[in-house]
Amino acid sequence: MNSGATDEQIGGVVSKIQSFGLDANVSRGMERTVIGALGDERTLDPEMFNSLGGVEYSMHVVKQYKIVSRESHKHDSIINIGGTLLGGAKVQVIGGPCSVETQEQMDVAAQHVSDTGCKLMRGGAFKPRTSPYTFQGNGEEGLRMFRKAADKYNLRIVTELMDARMLDTFMKYDVDVIQIGTRSMQNFELLKEVGRINKPVILKRGMSATISEWLMAAEYIAAGGNHNIIFCERGIRTFETAYRNVMDVTCIPVLKKETHMPVIVDPSHAGGKTWMVPALARAAIAAGADGLLVEMHPNPCEAWCDADQALNPQEFASLMGSLRGIAEVIGRSL
Amino acid sequence: MNSGATDEQIGGVVSKIQSFGLDANVSRGMERTVIGALGDERTLDPEMFNSLGGVEYSMHVVKQYKIVSRESHKHDSIINIGGTLLGGAKVQVIGGPCSVETQEQMDVAAQHVSDTGCKLMRGGAFKPRTSPYTFQGNGEEGLRMFRKAADKYNLRIVTELMDARMLDTFMKYDVDVIQIGTRSMQNFELLKEVGRINKPVILKRGMSATISEWLMAAEYIAAGGNHNIIFCERGIRTFETAYRNVMDVTCIPVLKKETHMPVIVDPSHAGGKTWMVPALARAAIAAGADGLLVEMHPNPCEAWCDADQALNPQEFASLMGSLRGIAEVIGRSL
Amino acid sequence: MNSGATDEQIGGVVSKIQSFGLDANVSRGMERTVIGALGDERTLDPEMFNSLGGVEYSMHVVKQYKIVSRESHKHDSIINIGGTLLGGAKVQVIGGPCSVETQEQMDVAAQHVSDTGCKLMRGGAFKPRTSPYTFQGNGEEGLRMFRKAADKYNLRIVTELMDARMLDTFMKYDVDVIQIGTRSMQNFELLKEVGRINKPVILKRGMSATISEWLMAAEYIAAGGNHNIIFCERGIRTFETAYRNVMDVTCIPVLKKETHMPVIVDPSHAGGKTWMVPALARAAIAAGADGLLVEMHPNPCEAWCDADQALNPQEFASLMGSLRGIAEVIGRSL
Amino acid sequence: MNSGATDEQIGGVVSKIQSFGLDANVSRGMERTVIGALGDERTLDPEMFNSLGGVEYSMHVVKQYKIVSRESHKHDSIINIGGTLLGGAKVQVIGGPCSVETQEQMDVAAQHVSDTGCKLMRGGAFKPRTSPYTFQGNGEEGLRMFRKAADKYNLRIVTELMDARMLDTFMKYDVDVIQIGTRSMQNFELLKEVGRINKPVILKRGMSATISEWLMAAEYIAAGGNHNIIFCERGIRTFETAYRNVMDVTCIPVLKKETHMPVIVDPSHAGGKTWMVPALARAAIAAGADGLLVEMHPNPCEAWCDADQALNPQEFASLMGSLRGIAEVIGRSL
Repeated sequence: MNSGATDEQIGGVVSKIQSFGLDANVSRGMERTVIGALGDERTLDPEMFNSLGGVEYSMHVVKQYKIVSRESHKHDSIINIGGTLLGGAKVQVIGGPCSVETQEQMDVAAQHVSDTGCKLMRGGAFKPRTSPYTFQGNGEEGLRMFRKAADKYNLRIVTELMDARMLDTFMKYDVDVIQIGTRSMQNFELLKEVGRINKPVILKRGMSATISEWLMAAEYIAAGGNHNIIFCERGIRTFETAYRNVMDVTCIPVLKKETHMPVIVDPSHAGGKTWMVPALARAAIAAGADGLLVEMHPNPCEAWCDADQALNPQEFASLMGSLRGIAEVIGRSL
Repeated sequence: MNSGATDEQIGGVVSKIQSFGLDANVSRGMERTVIGALGDERTLDPEMFNSLGGVEYSMHVVKQYKIVSRESHKHDSIINIGGTLLGGAKVQVIGGPCSVETQEQMDVAAQHVSDTGCKLMRGGAFKPRTSPYTFQGNGEEGLRMFRKAADKYNLRIVTELMDARMLDTFMKYDVDVIQIGTRSMQNFELLKEVGRINKPVILKRGMSATISEWLMAAEYIAAGGNHNIIFCERGIRTFETAYRNVMDVTCIPVLKKETHMPVIVDPSHAGGKTWMVPALARAAIAAGADGLLVEMHPNPCEAWCDADQALNPQEFASLMGSLRGIAEVIGRSL
Repeated sequence: MNSGATDEQIGGVVSKIQSFGLDANVSRGMERTVIGALGDERTLDPEMFNSLGGVEYSMHVVKQYKIVSRESHKHDSIINIGGTLLGGAKVQVIGGPCSVETQEQMDVAAQHVSDTGCKLMRGGAFKPRTSPYTFQGNGEEGLRMFRKAADKYNLRIVTELMDARMLDTFMKYDVDVIQIGTRSMQNFELLKEVGRINKPVILKRGMSATISEWLMAAEYIAAGGNHNIIFCERGIRTFETAYRNVMDVTCIPVLKKETHMPVIVDPSHAGGKTWMVPALARAAIAAGADGLLVEMHPNPCEAWCDADQALNPQEFASLMGSLRGIAEVIGRSL
Repeated sequence: MNSGATDEQIGGVVSKIQSFGLDANVSRGMERTVIGALGDERTLDPEMFNSLGGVEYSMHVVKQYKIVSRESHKHDSIINIGGTLLGGAKVQVIGGPCSVETQEQMDVAAQHVSDTGCKLMRGGAFKPRTSPYTFQGNGEEGLRMFRKAADKYNLRIVTELMDARMLDTFMKYDVDVIQIGTRSMQNFELLKEVGRINKPVILKRGMSATISEWLMAAEYIAAGGNHNIIFCERGIRTFETAYRNVMDVTCIPVLKKETHMPVIVDPSHAGGKTWMVPALARAAIAAGADGLLVEMHPNPCEAWCDADQALNPQEFASLMGSLRGIAEVIGRSL
């Protein structure tokens, strides 16, 4: 309550709390009176109170997310992706090109991914592009090529879903992990759809999403029944213009504390430049990430999009070596 | 090119430019060589050059948006919304509640909107909410109630579309203006869908979208054939925590310079508190906005969502008076 | 307290509160226990509690600023600048060039400022420049020229102090208003120095300072005894790159609610481009600002710094006209 | 130039470039004409051109920093701090409390710092605090206690200078490394002062300073003759509210590319919570930082400030172990 709140105004707030079936605790300090709601306060919306007389501000004390919360589930969740586990002691690296271009490109890429010991491969068939005049992805034909290349090397595939109407097509090609991109993090209708199926989902952070909004977006998926959620940090938007995004390593320990779901990082999109990727990848693993999404292209100079951030196969293999060393220092394996 | 670029590297860039059918201009300075592409450079992607040897960075000189650009169309576009014009000398205020709750609430709200002289009414039937556990809107039933209330007072209706699959339903209730919300600004599949129909679209700015990204999002709609686009500033996300968003008035003169489409402002979502709305609304009109989206609720304390930011009918009518005065000072009418 | 806090941990927090001479209120909810401190909690630092067992987080309920707070002083403060009043019904525009260049430039500028009816003039003798290799201001000689030009037209002068060691020089030239620049907002030693003298101070907002930090910076000045403080918004730093800063109009009503001190705006630095200044200036006045700092140069193309944002005398005079109109609409004069 | 620029306007820009003794290169494209300046363009200010007719925008192609630039000095600079080297293959950890409290506290802290093998110790005698009503540091008496404790264990000391007037006092106690705090990064008068002496300087990044501004601030020090500069990342300000700052690991590889000076990181201020510090410290070293500033307090619960972010001696020693492992993986030692 603000400093001049009257007894009548205090009574008004108490009544409002009681009208929802909760009890109120009134604490009168020297300068301020604080009123607490006792009971399941998730059913109350703080905004209902802000417009009452004498209220300075109101806030939730309890977290708004439940299923994804560490409080509801103490142990780390481990996601089973067709037999490959993500979360727990082992660190998983998901490599592959930004976009599916040709069958040959995917075959070569899949071979390199497999050769470095990775079990999971990334590649985009549907691409969210800032401009309507640039390459928008190969669509269903891209999914088909991706599936074929991955099957040859027994890899699980990760690809982005942008439109709920394409979900059946994703099921047809048996996509193993559905990626929800940064621009779709709060596409609530899409989240509800992937919440209804039983497939692992990588939920990328919105480019300026708070940790709390991100957890609530995951809660949309979880509330539908799908608890196979993997958080993916991909860089946030800040004032800095010297690089595309700022990779937020702090979110790794924070998410590990707030949720039981695994957390991975995409250092390629975070930095936006090939030469930054190894440093960022190492930092992510050192900070405790459960895995990485790394762009690797058989021939980056010829890539149809994001050429600027893909590692070539040699750089990728070399990075895997140093990541293995760091994982061991902190008691994990890769 | 970076400072140590060799002649061979310079030649490589020139060849790459020529391979796309453009000419290259090479300018050798004391410390740097700059290479320009002559021709329609929109077909080039700067990233294709960044991975070539010796390149420091590459950028577009020409704007990536065409149809929405002021260069392509010198005069202000005026959008015809069922006979009511938005853009040009007259300023339009779109009033109404955050969400459609009941038929009675909408009838009363419509009467107040009409009484103050407004021709356009807002109201949400499908609500994007951060939490899956809060009210998600009345859906199709909400559209029906909204249409009925508006028709009684001959008002045009503005409401948010979150999912391409609902577009037929929007057509069924003859929604006059489709609003694309802040979380959907880069939902490219949705933008393509509303680009195919011939209805005015209000495109809200993403919460951390740059002016350039916003213009490109509008270009997605325009590229589909729909040129009835209204930009709506609704506050951007910054480091400041004392208020929900920072209303960006600077974007008004900047958009007016870059595009011929009208620009409106939503001071209610920008501020997030009723008591801030009049100051922000006045600032927007003073800065040259073509209109406003203002939340007005017959009884804000009882509103089902965003209770904290809606004006009551008296406050709304009073605000209209001062807006009229400001519009006149800058040579417009309301 | 976090959800698993023990009675012993709750007791530990209560003891810590009591050890500072305050009482504790313990409110046990279904999922969380909340403990409040009763008494003058400003003496407590929330961080002292965060490291105690079982504490989830701790925060102040009472504002940390006192003297500048609206709660401590209900009525608007009016600052007397050598007979010219800032704050209250009249809006003051402070015009003049970015930097003092020559005696002639200042004489001509002063004449224009005076001709448009302004009583206060701005001009920088000491310039904070990002690069050490650019013009750093004319120093003391600049102050002398500025004083001389202003005296001829009976204008009060506003100029920036960057270094406490120059304060005597400022007194020697009888600077009427000391400006603390955006980069010095948290130069606490400088704030303490200007807190000891009895001169009006314009405190510009740090480029990413929160409202709370800004009020605390003013409290440093006020705590020293100097209550003649004018807040000046000059644009904040955000992710947007299309313009230098984002002018934060929302801060105007918010500051008016939190503090009794006047609030002015610098639309020239906020926008960074001449063509944006009129729109931003009008928005600031419409939102309730008590005044403006506007860059005006007799010949902007020849200005030694910030040439890009100064109005010429004709543009300045024309802007004054529309500002007068807007001030009248909201019941003020200019 | 903008799309409608006339030949006369193009001529005007060319003449302006030539008036500064440089040559102009004019490149006429299909939609835009681009004019380049050939010669030392650092003497030109882009703003001088923006106000000329027909100019769309102007920018520097050459970097504005020289002495600190990697282009001017290819090899890594190694800073000699009384015999201890910072930069190069060895990673240095600077440990110690936030503020100097008592002689006993400093003696115990120094012993722990020394026991873990560190050669450099941190501690603040002058504290920049947001509120004027909180502990401001022990001042000169603090320096005396710090020096005494450090000498006992042969440690070099690092402490913050907030005011140029205290520089003589810093020399009197033979401070080994002068720290310029985040709020002083653009206190240009202070930078000039430390540029005149021959002491290593740790230049912390401003809380929303771009890489370019930070490099220019270092250039102020270097231009005065002092080339012993150490950059220190300490977290940047973003929209995120779940933690105090976002530690920007990306800046490490970027600075390593742009400058030859060493780069260290302060994970304690970046995170703001003890439990985040180990993850952030490991990430910084993995990303290639040359050292760390880590808060360690003999008894964090009793710390007079920032109690919430200090490690206790056991946590500090344990962290040193894992940092050693990571340093080795990337070919360095600690």
